[in-house]
Amino acid sequence: MFTPFLHQLGPWLRGDGAVSDIVISSRIRLARNISGFPFKSKASEEDRQQIEELLHQMMPKILDENSYYELDMETLSPVDRHLLQERQLISRDIADAEGPRAAFIAKDESFSIMVNEEDHLRMQSLTSGLDLSKVWNIINQLDDKVESLIPYAFSPELGYLTACPTNVGTGLRVSVMLHLPAVTISQEIEKVFRGLQKLNLAVRGIYGEGSQALGDFYQISNQITLGRSEEELMQQVREIVDRIVQYEQKARESLMHDDKNSVYDRASRALGILQSARTMSSEEAMHLLSSVRLAVNLGILEVPAIPLINELLLYIQPAHLQRLNNSELSVPERDLARAEFLRRKLGEHP
Amino acid sequence: MFTPFLHQLGPWLRGDGAVSDIVISSRIRLARNISGFPFKSKASEEDRQQIEELLHQMMPKILDENSYYELDMETLSPVDRHLLQERQLISRDIADAEGPRAAFIAKDESFSIMVNEEDHLRMQSLTSGLDLSKVWNIINQLDDKVESLIPYAFSPELGYLTACPTNVGTGLRVSVMLHLPAVTISQEIEKVFRGLQKLNLAVRGIYGEGSQALGDFYQISNQITLGRSEEELMQQVREIVDRIVQYEQKARESLMHDDKNSVYDRASRALGILQSARTMSSEEAMHLLSSVRLAVNLGILEVPAIPLINELLLYIQPAHLQRLNNSELSVPERDLARAEFLRRKLGEHP
Repeated sequence: MFTPFLHQLGPWLRGDGAVSDIVISSRIRLARNISGFPFKSKASEEDRQQIEELLHQMMPKILDENSYYELDMETLSPVDRHLLQERQLISRDIADAEGPRAAFIAKDESFSIMVNEEDHLRMQSLTSGLDLSKVWNIINQLDDKVESLIPYAFSPELGYLTACPTNVGTGLRVSVMLHLPAVTISQEIEKVFRGLQKLNLAVRGIYGEGSQALGDFYQISNQITLGRSEEELMQQVREIVDRIVQYEQKARESLMHDDKNSVYDRASRALGILQSARTMSSEEAMHLLSSVRLAVNLGILEVPAIPLINELLLYIQPAHLQRLNNSELSVPERDLARAEFLRRKLGEHP
Repeated sequence: MFTPFLHQLGPWLRGDGAVSDIVISSRIRLARNISGFPFKSKASEEDRQQIEELLHQMMPKILDENSYYELDMETLSPVDRHLLQERQLISRDIADAEGPRAAFIAKDESFSIMVNEEDHLRMQSLTSGLDLSKVWNIINQLDDKVESLIPYAFSPELGYLTACPTNVGTGLRVSVMLHLPAVTISQEIEKVFRGLQKLNLAVRGIYGEGSQALGDFYQISNQITLGRSEEELMQQVREIVDRIVQYEQKARESLMHDDKNSVYDRASRALGILQSARTMSSEEAMHLLSSVRLAVNLGILEVPAIPLINELLLYIQPAHLQRLNNSELSVPERDLARAEFLRRKLGEHP
């Protein structure tokens, strides 16, 4: 069992950073492959073990040995892997895969390096609010250090070579997690998303399978990494996020003007249900927490604080719930544990 | 403005009496007409004034003068009339009618006499729980006293004559108000009601227009008063109520056995919403209070006490809400006032 992160608030839960009422977190990941090895899909188990061993040897030269955990995905339990995935420290793919694979994760959760994900290396940094420069600086420095010791697969024409052509070039993906309850209520969200697709940006929900967005939380990211510089790619996402943020801000202003009582009523009821239900699915919990988060950000509700709401959004997920309860739980058991956890954290009533 | 009853708990709100977990209240009313006057539908305004005057003169000889209020329906405000109706002290018909009409109401709300309702006199008594003997004794004594001073329209063959043929004979209607959430959940309620119709018993909701039952509260009463003695009519209703009570008790036992967690979850959420909503219709409030009342009666919830729940069921009605707020309120204003009242009485949260 791997517990270090369980009782710590990750950097994207703090609820600070720019426009953190709308932007939950900013993330950048780089896809890299090591010269001299086949891409992972073609690599033998021995190749992958060698890659893992190479990183194991090199990492103390790249990072302060006390600053990170090295985690062997093959020996880590499924629930622990899913816990890391819920914290956005590893991908769903590497959590669910088999064979030699590992993750190096900063103790403060500010960055992580996956080994033998789709590419040999996937490096990412994550922070609260909208701050692409910060995550870029962290991940760029890390990338430089790794590259100084490990030869990357690189083509002067194409840039960094990756297992999937959509990542060729910079290997960079910028992802911004947004809370968009007001444009959802005002039914403008479809318009926003149609605009994003034209710009080759992908929209996903968080936690939900596939693209299903739960509780008005959405993640947008660039689709194409080729033919543009890292700075251009970040600038494109930044501009579009700014536009979506403006949409959401306008929709929130309209709500406050036209329908404040409904927002207040909906959020008060949501909080009342969160404080009193005896069983609750994660879908329902995310919807209710979304209503509460909107009202707190609009100043309609005074409590709970945003960092607590962000924390709850994470800890109601299956792996976190099971690790908090120190046991494997079936879906109905999780629903009971989730309701109990929410009541305890939000103040049980009566 | 007529306020005496506003801050007093009527006798049917106490939540005591036999099987009061299922039977809210028992009521008996007698329809009587005064010999020498046409039935009300044929009576002139002068006739009706004379009837009212006659009762005004006689009442001090029938009742202790300090034990009742004499209320002129023509001068009482509509909201005060509806308040009396919500307390089951007068009928909707007399509340909404026009012309000379009055009500004599016991200060302790144990009985009332309506003058110029559908019949010249409608006398009724009401108590908490299942206790037909008690209300019969009260109303029978009252009837005897009235009859000793005022000649009733009576036929040796038919019995007491009434404006509507369904009341001819004893002029007696027995009504029992029931809370039947478990047979409603188990979907046996339709079966119960089909059985009642075969037995010529009527089923109505309380407060709801017509037969719409709100919050699983139902009122059953005999349809026919002819050809049977008062004791037989009461016995018939008593036996059927006993049977319905047994159905409900069995359905509650099954719920406790098979689905206790759902009952607990539903009731906890209902209480959470009642304690937190900022606006609420009376329909929703009655449904939520019904869930809470069931759980308290099953010992699943410890609070709120049954008398408080019964009180809330009454005070969330439009006229009570408006009188508590000392002003006429539109429907949206009432919904706000209702939610505010419920939060205050149940303990606001957070």
